[in-house]
Amino acid sequence: MTDERAYVLDHIADLHADLDAWLRIPSISADPELAGEVRRSAEWLAEAFRRTGFPTVEIWETPGAPAVFAEWPSGEADAPTIVVYGHHDVQPVDPLELWETPPFEPTIRGEELFARGALDDKGQVAFHLLGLRAHLAATGRTAPAVNLKFVVEGEEESGSPHFAALLRERRDRLDCDAVVVSDTTMFNRETPSVCTAMRGLTDCQVDVHGPDIDLHSGSFGGAVPNPLTVLCELIAGLHDADGKVTLPGFYDRVVALTDEERAKFAKLPFDEQQWITETAKSRAPYGEAGFTTLERIWARPTAEVNGVWGGYTGPGHKTIVPTDAHAKLSFRLVADQKPLEVQAAVKQYFAERTPPGITVGVHFYGDGVRPCLTPIDHPANAAVVRAMEQAFESEVLFTREGGSGPEADLAEVLEAPVVFLGVGLPDDRFHAPNERVVLPMLHKGAEAAAHLWRELAVTDLSR
Amino acid sequence: MTDERAYVLDHIADLHADLDAWLRIPSISADPELAGEVRRSAEWLAEAFRRTGFPTVEIWETPGAPAVFAEWPSGEADAPTIVVYGHHDVQPVDPLELWETPPFEPTIRGEELFARGALDDKGQVAFHLLGLRAHLAATGRTAPAVNLKFVVEGEEESGSPHFAALLRERRDRLDCDAVVVSDTTMFNRETPSVCTAMRGLTDCQVDVHGPDIDLHSGSFGGAVPNPLTVLCELIAGLHDADGKVTLPGFYDRVVALTDEERAKFAKLPFDEQQWITETAKSRAPYGEAGFTTLERIWARPTAEVNGVWGGYTGPGHKTIVPTDAHAKLSFRLVADQKPLEVQAAVKQYFAERTPPGITVGVHFYGDGVRPCLTPIDHPANAAVVRAMEQAFESEVLFTREGGSGPEADLAEVLEAPVVFLGVGLPDDRFHAPNERVVLPMLHKGAEAAAHLWRELAVTDLSR
Repeated sequence: MTDERAYVLDHIADLHADLDAWLRIPSISADPELAGEVRRSAEWLAEAFRRTGFPTVEIWETPGAPAVFAEWPSGEADAPTIVVYGHHDVQPVDPLELWETPPFEPTIRGEELFARGALDDKGQVAFHLLGLRAHLAATGRTAPAVNLKFVVEGEEESGSPHFAALLRERRDRLDCDAVVVSDTTMFNRETPSVCTAMRGLTDCQVDVHGPDIDLHSGSFGGAVPNPLTVLCELIAGLHDADGKVTLPGFYDRVVALTDEERAKFAKLPFDEQQWITETAKSRAPYGEAGFTTLERIWARPTAEVNGVWGGYTGPGHKTIVPTDAHAKLSFRLVADQKPLEVQAAVKQYFAERTPPGITVGVHFYGDGVRPCLTPIDHPANAAVVRAMEQAFESEVLFTREGGSGPEADLAEVLEAPVVFLGVGLPDDRFHAPNERVVLPMLHKGAEAAAHLWRELAVTDLSR
Repeated sequence: MTDERAYVLDHIADLHADLDAWLRIPSISADPELAGEVRRSAEWLAEAFRRTGFPTVEIWETPGAPAVFAEWPSGEADAPTIVVYGHHDVQPVDPLELWETPPFEPTIRGEELFARGALDDKGQVAFHLLGLRAHLAATGRTAPAVNLKFVVEGEEESGSPHFAALLRERRDRLDCDAVVVSDTTMFNRETPSVCTAMRGLTDCQVDVHGPDIDLHSGSFGGAVPNPLTVLCELIAGLHDADGKVTLPGFYDRVVALTDEERAKFAKLPFDEQQWITETAKSRAPYGEAGFTTLERIWARPTAEVNGVWGGYTGPGHKTIVPTDAHAKLSFRLVADQKPLEVQAAVKQYFAERTPPGITVGVHFYGDGVRPCLTPIDHPANAAVVRAMEQAFESEVLFTREGGSGPEADLAEVLEAPVVFLGVGLPDDRFHAPNERVVLPMLHKGAEAAAHLWRELAVTDLSR
């Protein structure tokens, strides 16, 4: 047994006691009436960092809920600097009546701990406290082997509205060689895995204008362009028969999956039929030819129609050629696509294909979200894999995520590779009643964190 | 000068007096509070028929407003039987403030008579009263040369909700060899013309179902079929690159335009650019390749999208793969297309093209409206043309109409050719403030009607 594991197993009660205290604080960032509780959660965490030995601990104010910053320099020359990201706010709890035990009264049943935030994300922040102590104890160090910085925000469950600005404002304090995100899941309990990428996003509204008034389809139909027909044709034209997106240059920057990553994906025990019917509540797979379902949602960009409206949509019928048609479109992006280039391609697509007599306006919501990708053979990922393998004593596979939250901001603002150390399980019911964390997973998380600082200390992150 | 014209010119004051009385009755069928006025309008007309000499005049009740029936047998063996259709109800008058003189105070300014119903349709029914007297005077007859029946309904401006049922109920009383509709316009003042066809219609709602819940487009986008994308592809597929409708068998029954009719259409002084920009408030023509704008709206069937909705349509953005998508589609039909066959083709189209994982429901509104067509060389049309030519002393051209109202019911229930004797002008502002009739047109209508009974009496309508 490694010294790290021995320490973790000896001190599990400390981790449970930490969580029991922290999880009793109802830090729901979406509820303005609980703003005081979110602050109390930040203060609890700041105190826990101090207790653990961090010499610098600060509450960082934002226009919304406060974040917690903690820093512990290694003291070693040339030690890499690591930022750990997590969040201390939690999801709302309704419907309350579906909880078997109250959401803010942490309850252990068997090997599971039930409470709102047990996994997402207090559990995955708390395991770092024990993990770091195990790292120090096992290595006999008085400071971590890497320069450690934690930034734990308080508004992730509200969409991180102020986090990107906070990162930019505190850019110098957060300078680092890699970011470790602890807010994700593994493939399943038997399959430890590391997330390596998140898709980006850019989305827009398309406004199509035809006649200046709704026209009688008997008197005019067939002789003037119908904006709804044109919109449907333009949307239909976004994909070819192979399900590929036809936007000019859309795939030019896409980083192809490597044979190794595809092979690792294929080793995941993924039941496509179950995912389609039970998870996606759908009846058939669909997508870009030549890719599996997992590859489609993790590693390929998309063009989706999120909404369409125009013309008469009430009860009964009204036979018009309508004046207007509208759609909301979103594009999921993968490394190294750039949201602004995709926006330009979308505008070019509509400009080039709009037929005479129709005008099309395309309005994008902001600058979009960049995709992020840390290749599976990147030294930082290799370090995470080694740490996980020591904790789980099992081959570590790779996953990706189809969407992203603040991770994209971390990668973009801090200009550092983002890696993921997460031990949640897909059925941990985060965001739902009876959220839980499986305690053996939590302990493995602490142990993997303990290994990780030692592994990263000997990793060249300059690549 | 023909005896008919001489009589009309000598008795114009009678026509003006009739209209002055009738137009003062605000017979707006859409206004339930004016139901008594619509009845008073029917009673006025019944009395006018009696006054003109009709031996049989009846008020026909419906669940809505009453119709007026009048019958005057020719007395000649083998005389053809003609039903004349018109309506005695009028459009609402709002916005009232835009009328230069009150809508129910008929006012003559120059050669125009202004009032609600001046053209549509009291003017075009009233000219028949003078026309018939001119016919009798000019021919020295005591009864018309044809068996004449009038059916003048009271709900046309409300969509004729009870007219088809009335026709079926009174089918035996309305038995005839041809129907003359006096409720349409000529091409313009300088171009007397006869309408020969009206398009039919069938329309439906299409409901497309994808996932059973709205899905996060990051987690699922690209791997399950999106019902909005599928709906857009299905709608886009309804037309080929030439603007032809792709429904199976859609054109099989379409009666092709004859070279003669196309040549006559081409003689119409139609300013396409003006029609597109000023009438259709559009910016470019569009439609089936190989046909002119007039041919497209008059003689070719269409598939139009009247409305589409689905997914997120509110402010801002919500990046979902939606569970449902919907559209309202209408198909304008031309002779000899059958609405029920088109409905079957639409259902077949969607059934064959729906991809796996998507379900599509198609719900049609009723059995549709049949198109009607009386060819330009049909003897009944030839008689109308001769009557018009004598009145206007000018070549009579042909038009069609892109939609239809009760005319389709007349053709279908009475199983007789429908011809059109109308002298309205496109800019007579029927349905708008300051509706007018141009008095010389009204007089020509009376004269043409006088000629028509004589012409039809010598026409073999058995074809």
